[in-house]
Amino acid sequence: MNAVIVDCGVYSHGVRLDRPTTVAGLRKEAEDAGGFAWVGLVEPTAAEFESVKREFDLHKLAVEDAIVAHQRPKLALYDDTIFLVLKTAQYLGEDEVVDIGEVLLFLGPSFLITVRHGDAGGLGQVRERLEQEGKLLEHGPGAALHAIVDRIVGAYEPVLAGVREDLDQVEEQVFSPAGTNPVERIYKLRRETLEFSRAVAPLPAALTALAGLPQIAPELRPYFRDVADQAAHVAEQVEGFGSLLAGVLQANLTQVSVRQNEDMRRISAWVAIIAVPTMIAGIYGMNFEHMPELGWRYGYPAVLLLILGACLILFRRFRKSGWL
Amino acid sequence: MNAVIVDCGVYSHGVRLDRPTTVAGLRKEAEDAGGFAWVGLVEPTAAEFESVKREFDLHKLAVEDAIVAHQRPKLALYDDTIFLVLKTAQYLGEDEVVDIGEVLLFLGPSFLITVRHGDAGGLGQVRERLEQEGKLLEHGPGAALHAIVDRIVGAYEPVLAGVREDLDQVEEQVFSPAGTNPVERIYKLRRETLEFSRAVAPLPAALTALAGLPQIAPELRPYFRDVADQAAHVAEQVEGFGSLLAGVLQANLTQVSVRQNEDMRRISAWVAIIAVPTMIAGIYGMNFEHMPELGWRYGYPAVLLLILGACLILFRRFRKSGWL
Amino acid sequence: MNAVIVDCGVYSHGVRLDRPTTVAGLRKEAEDAGGFAWVGLVEPTAAEFESVKREFDLHKLAVEDAIVAHQRPKLALYDDTIFLVLKTAQYLGEDEVVDIGEVLLFLGPSFLITVRHGDAGGLGQVRERLEQEGKLLEHGPGAALHAIVDRIVGAYEPVLAGVREDLDQVEEQVFSPAGTNPVERIYKLRRETLEFSRAVAPLPAALTALAGLPQIAPELRPYFRDVADQAAHVAEQVEGFGSLLAGVLQANLTQVSVRQNEDMRRISAWVAIIAVPTMIAGIYGMNFEHMPELGWRYGYPAVLLLILGACLILFRRFRKSGWL
Amino acid sequence: MNAVIVDCGVYSHGVRLDRPTTVAGLRKEAEDAGGFAWVGLVEPTAAEFESVKREFDLHKLAVEDAIVAHQRPKLALYDDTIFLVLKTAQYLGEDEVVDIGEVLLFLGPSFLITVRHGDAGGLGQVRERLEQEGKLLEHGPGAALHAIVDRIVGAYEPVLAGVREDLDQVEEQVFSPAGTNPVERIYKLRRETLEFSRAVAPLPAALTALAGLPQIAPELRPYFRDVADQAAHVAEQVEGFGSLLAGVLQANLTQVSVRQNEDMRRISAWVAIIAVPTMIAGIYGMNFEHMPELGWRYGYPAVLLLILGACLILFRRFRKSGWL
Amino acid sequence: MNAVIVDCGVYSHGVRLDRPTTVAGLRKEAEDAGGFAWVGLVEPTAAEFESVKREFDLHKLAVEDAIVAHQRPKLALYDDTIFLVLKTAQYLGEDEVVDIGEVLLFLGPSFLITVRHGDAGGLGQVRERLEQEGKLLEHGPGAALHAIVDRIVGAYEPVLAGVREDLDQVEEQVFSPAGTNPVERIYKLRRETLEFSRAVAPLPAALTALAGLPQIAPELRPYFRDVADQAAHVAEQVEGFGSLLAGVLQANLTQVSVRQNEDMRRISAWVAIIAVPTMIAGIYGMNFEHMPELGWRYGYPAVLLLILGACLILFRRFRKSGWL
Repeated sequence: MNAVIVDCGVYSHGVRLDRPTTVAGLRKEAEDAGGFAWVGLVEPTAAEFESVKREFDLHKLAVEDAIVAHQRPKLALYDDTIFLVLKTAQYLGEDEVVDIGEVLLFLGPSFLITVRHGDAGGLGQVRERLEQEGKLLEHGPGAALHAIVDRIVGAYEPVLAGVREDLDQVEEQVFSPAGTNPVERIYKLRRETLEFSRAVAPLPAALTALAGLPQIAPELRPYFRDVADQAAHVAEQVEGFGSLLAGVLQANLTQVSVRQNEDMRRISAWVAIIAVPTMIAGIYGMNFEHMPELGWRYGYPAVLLLILGACLILFRRFRKSGWL
Repeated sequence: MNAVIVDCGVYSHGVRLDRPTTVAGLRKEAEDAGGFAWVGLVEPTAAEFESVKREFDLHKLAVEDAIVAHQRPKLALYDDTIFLVLKTAQYLGEDEVVDIGEVLLFLGPSFLITVRHGDAGGLGQVRERLEQEGKLLEHGPGAALHAIVDRIVGAYEPVLAGVREDLDQVEEQVFSPAGTNPVERIYKLRRETLEFSRAVAPLPAALTALAGLPQIAPELRPYFRDVADQAAHVAEQVEGFGSLLAGVLQANLTQVSVRQNEDMRRISAWVAIIAVPTMIAGIYGMNFEHMPELGWRYGYPAVLLLILGACLILFRRFRKSGWL
Repeated sequence: MNAVIVDCGVYSHGVRLDRPTTVAGLRKEAEDAGGFAWVGLVEPTAAEFESVKREFDLHKLAVEDAIVAHQRPKLALYDDTIFLVLKTAQYLGEDEVVDIGEVLLFLGPSFLITVRHGDAGGLGQVRERLEQEGKLLEHGPGAALHAIVDRIVGAYEPVLAGVREDLDQVEEQVFSPAGTNPVERIYKLRRETLEFSRAVAPLPAALTALAGLPQIAPELRPYFRDVADQAAHVAEQVEGFGSLLAGVLQANLTQVSVRQNEDMRRISAWVAIIAVPTMIAGIYGMNFEHMPELGWRYGYPAVLLLILGACLILFRRFRKSGWL
Repeated sequence: MNAVIVDCGVYSHGVRLDRPTTVAGLRKEAEDAGGFAWVGLVEPTAAEFESVKREFDLHKLAVEDAIVAHQRPKLALYDDTIFLVLKTAQYLGEDEVVDIGEVLLFLGPSFLITVRHGDAGGLGQVRERLEQEGKLLEHGPGAALHAIVDRIVGAYEPVLAGVREDLDQVEEQVFSPAGTNPVERIYKLRRETLEFSRAVAPLPAALTALAGLPQIAPELRPYFRDVADQAAHVAEQVEGFGSLLAGVLQANLTQVSVRQNEDMRRISAWVAIIAVPTMIAGIYGMNFEHMPELGWRYGYPAVLLLILGACLILFRRFRKSGWL
Repeated sequence: MNAVIVDCGVYSHGVRLDRPTTVAGLRKEAEDAGGFAWVGLVEPTAAEFESVKREFDLHKLAVEDAIVAHQRPKLALYDDTIFLVLKTAQYLGEDEVVDIGEVLLFLGPSFLITVRHGDAGGLGQVRERLEQEGKLLEHGPGAALHAIVDRIVGAYEPVLAGVREDLDQVEEQVFSPAGTNPVERIYKLRRETLEFSRAVAPLPAALTALAGLPQIAPELRPYFRDVADQAAHVAEQVEGFGSLLAGVLQANLTQVSVRQNEDMRRISAWVAIIAVPTMIAGIYGMNFEHMPELGWRYGYPAVLLLILGACLILFRRFRKSGWL
């Protein structure tokens, strides 16, 4: 078995048949057994994908898309084969980055092919769980498709939670008196949010359309509609984050301005406090012959006291008015 | 009766039948009596909901949604059963927080099941009122559904009023000469408004669609359309608040800038007033041998008067031009 | 006749029948005469509206709306009766406030009922004018309805004119060198504009739908379409005002910043002009034994001249570069 | 011929019939000749328009619109007569104003009536050109209508070019080091752009709808679709200008802020340069008995050199760091 | 062969027929051979295009568009002939300019005509590659059309990459401590992005419509849909860039404000450090007779030390609080 083919098997009446994991003959075996074949690939090259393409008679264009993998989420039909592109998302909390991967799915009457690009960890577990439960697999490849889509969309929730948490932190930073300026963080969160939004936004329409296709068994339709609803919920939340981040960016600008004003007031207060002794000292530094205070015995300490007093009064008034 | 089941009864021709409040057999009793069963639950677990699910043959997906309860407002059909998700809203004035709850409703030909998450206080009163009036309940479970929806949407009005009041206060703060900076308050109001908007925005379409379903009796349709109109009105108001809050955020930035300028002018005026005596004193502190003023008898008081005069003139001019 | 009933009459072939202005029997009289009844009410309570409701068999929901009157502009159908909600607008120039009222209309095959909330002055004149012209009333209650709608929408134009004038004044204020900060005025104009926009925006669609109803005579349709066009024109203008006010708010922020900079330059220039004499005086205030200038006969006046010259040169340069 | 009637003629098989330019009898003559009448009016009053209205049996509402002329671009049908409202635009470069006029057109099977409000210069030339070419007029009044619409939409291009040029100039101003603040110019360009946009935006839809009307000959349809495309192109460009002007407004605010900072740095640098001599002079102005430097022969020039040196070093450092 | 005609040939069963490259007779030859003619032109004048127009009976309007070439991307039908307008894009990295060209295509049952305006380099290579592969050309002119569209849309990807790279650089600049102000660069990138967006945005709809036309062979439809998807992907990315650039513009304004504050603090700290010695020196410059410090032997050095110490303490405190 080629290294890019993670797993492949034939399922009939919910049970995995005992056969070697090679692609050759898969389709016929599946059709003979009245079941379906399920092949999983990871980042295949054109050459590596060739055998799968031939076995299941996949359309050239869909195959190209599956190999290059820079698609937006979409649903396409090539003859009877459904081609579905989904984005996987994962939140890397320490970098505050939404890591976007891609899963491309081919669904035929007797086969399901999954092509994974980037990290989409849980897909293997989906197969394991389905194989153990068995019952779901009796409904054919559509049920397996639903399980995968459900898993991928379900994995958006922790991403939402991660972004929400970072947004909460950013809000706290912006409105805290500490005076940090999280503008870079806000911007980058917004960028990640935008990318995530692009991954999610086209999904509800695609999944709703999928639910209406004749290839999907009627009893599965509510399931696809349900996951479409969930995707719509995620898309709405992400859009809301974008709007909040725009608001926080503007609030931050105001906060920066306000802090700037506070700094300016503090500086100015100190400048004023220093300017007063300089002025008084300047007056007694004048060289007039007739300045009675200069001859007084306690003139000097008196002036020092005057200076100190003036400074203290100023200091208190600035304190009171909140400038210091 | 399980604790999560708040109440359950069978209504026939507008009258509540005398029976124990247990779930078992509800449906049959209701059908036999030509009436309908009405079950109310609060935050049930999957296990707790199991008996209700079996009794009324509810769809697995809708049940999952009803237990997890992180849905957007929506209308879904599972076979003949209408599944409606609504958000309840309550304004906590002292925290300026819109508290969002969730009510999920199952409507079948002979039953109405309400699942409440979070605080949705008035629902119990709806039942009481309906039981007393009786007449409305003759129209079947749809009339009870309408009463609940009407109650929930009606409860949006005080939320609107609360937000409007806070918005008025914020406007006053922004434009008052006191110079406070309500940027955090504005931002948080905006966040709450956004969340409320997400709770309300999908409602008009869902209720309009509901009004068109064949399960809803024709004479009830205008009622659902009326409440859809009311929801549209609320959604419009909320959107308007969002727009006003964005405007107030920007106006506040301008106000902060303007106040910054006013502070700067005041500071600068005082600096100038202090700088003048320093300059004059500096001149008479020069050590030239031939400075006639220094020898004058009243040179010193004259200079003091000069200094005082200069300061007064400056002070008055700054006053007049509004800098002080 | 109840005080809330402003006027009520029966019109047949364009002529008002001579009868007491009481509600009882209105409908039958109108139907017998092959004409229609026209009843005008002002802010009725539920009790006061009761007789009208019974006489014309109005739907409970529409009646509730007509009494509470916090509706958005809308068109609803209750059986054969058309229910139309319109907002009246009036510009109170001295307060720069758009005063919004509400008119609710019931149109049946043989009656027209108008319910007015708030000031909607001209409605009485509409009836007078129609009664004098007579001919229009031959077309039945639809023609009267059109006359009212036309009046209400026509009254939007002076509101537009008032807002436009205030916007022009605000623009002038923002860009005038006088340096006022009309941010509060801009914000409040924006708020009024938003409210007016909510009153007008749903109208074109409602009136276009109205024009298509079978209850409206074909020859009246172009008239309703025309007033729908006019409403669309108003809505577009109002939206444009909103956009301009957003722009003016931002332009004002720039102007405030620019003026801030100009003030800072002016202040700084004066500080520099004062700092130079202080520095020069400081130098000649040093106590070195060997400072030849100190012994010069005209050292002191020379230094004074130097100081004056330096200040003058600085002053001129600042003038030239536009800082003073 | 009334002064408001610019020209009127009957065209048959592409040739203008020789007849007096009076309205009376126009329609019959045109129908008899199997051709069409073309009447051009300028800002008629109701009285002046009366004869035309009667001759061609125009609808009262369209006539009112044509006289008042504050319509948005629209297409309306009154029985068989097409009523089209267009806005003409002209760029007055020296004032940077988009001058909007209005042309209202009535198209019947055997007539075309044009009503012009404001300056719409080229319309007369359209008729001249068509009369010379003749061939186009064989296609009936629809071809003449197209020629007029084509002319009006074609005249939008120089407006676009004018706005684009002013936008280029504004961009240059904003980013030039000269430091002018073109905020008023930006705002006014935006206002003009908005008005122009209102004149153009509804056009593509109206013209596309026009192209689909049965009154328009099939061979003319591509021509109307083509001009609709052109209008869409203009509308798109205008919208783009609006977006760029919003961007330039914000960029300008940043530039103003940056220049403010540069001014502040420059000022501060000079203040620091002046403060150093004052400080040094202050030190040697102290009256200690034992200050050896004061007795030095060359103490004074040494200190002057020290001061000069310190100032020079500061000046150079500020230069290097770009503050001066 | 005219210079504006780059190449023209007849293809039958995937093979290019051996014939002179003249336009005359092309169509008949192609029809006789059961193949199609392919003519490529570069910026033709009306005169130069005349022979092609006559040979293939092209519609006057499409020909005008093809000569003037200031069209938005669009799809139009003139009888049986498909007229498609596309924009080519190229990123000139050193100037950060998106260079937009135009390609206009006529597709008939037996011909494909390409008219190129501006630089659209790769089109010649498309023909070469197709001629070598041959097989594709068997599918008729539609396949050649697809190859061209695919090439043009494919060439958008490097433009995206270029803009993304510049955006990354701009982000780095904005958030780097170096303190440059890339506002002009941001604005110009935004302008280019907007222009690119206008070139791409109408494409997905046009190509999707094209894929549905009966003139396109069913087996080619997925290909056109695929390239429509790719165009939608590009349009989405471009829109995302626009949103990010708007965000970066605002973030930059905040950064400029923050840096302004930092500069102001640094300046103020130095002013304070200089003001302290001036104040102390001023005090010992007073002329009181009884100032014991003045008579002390080491008064002067002690004061110098005091001054130095005060300055050092201030310097350290400012360092610690991050002002210096």
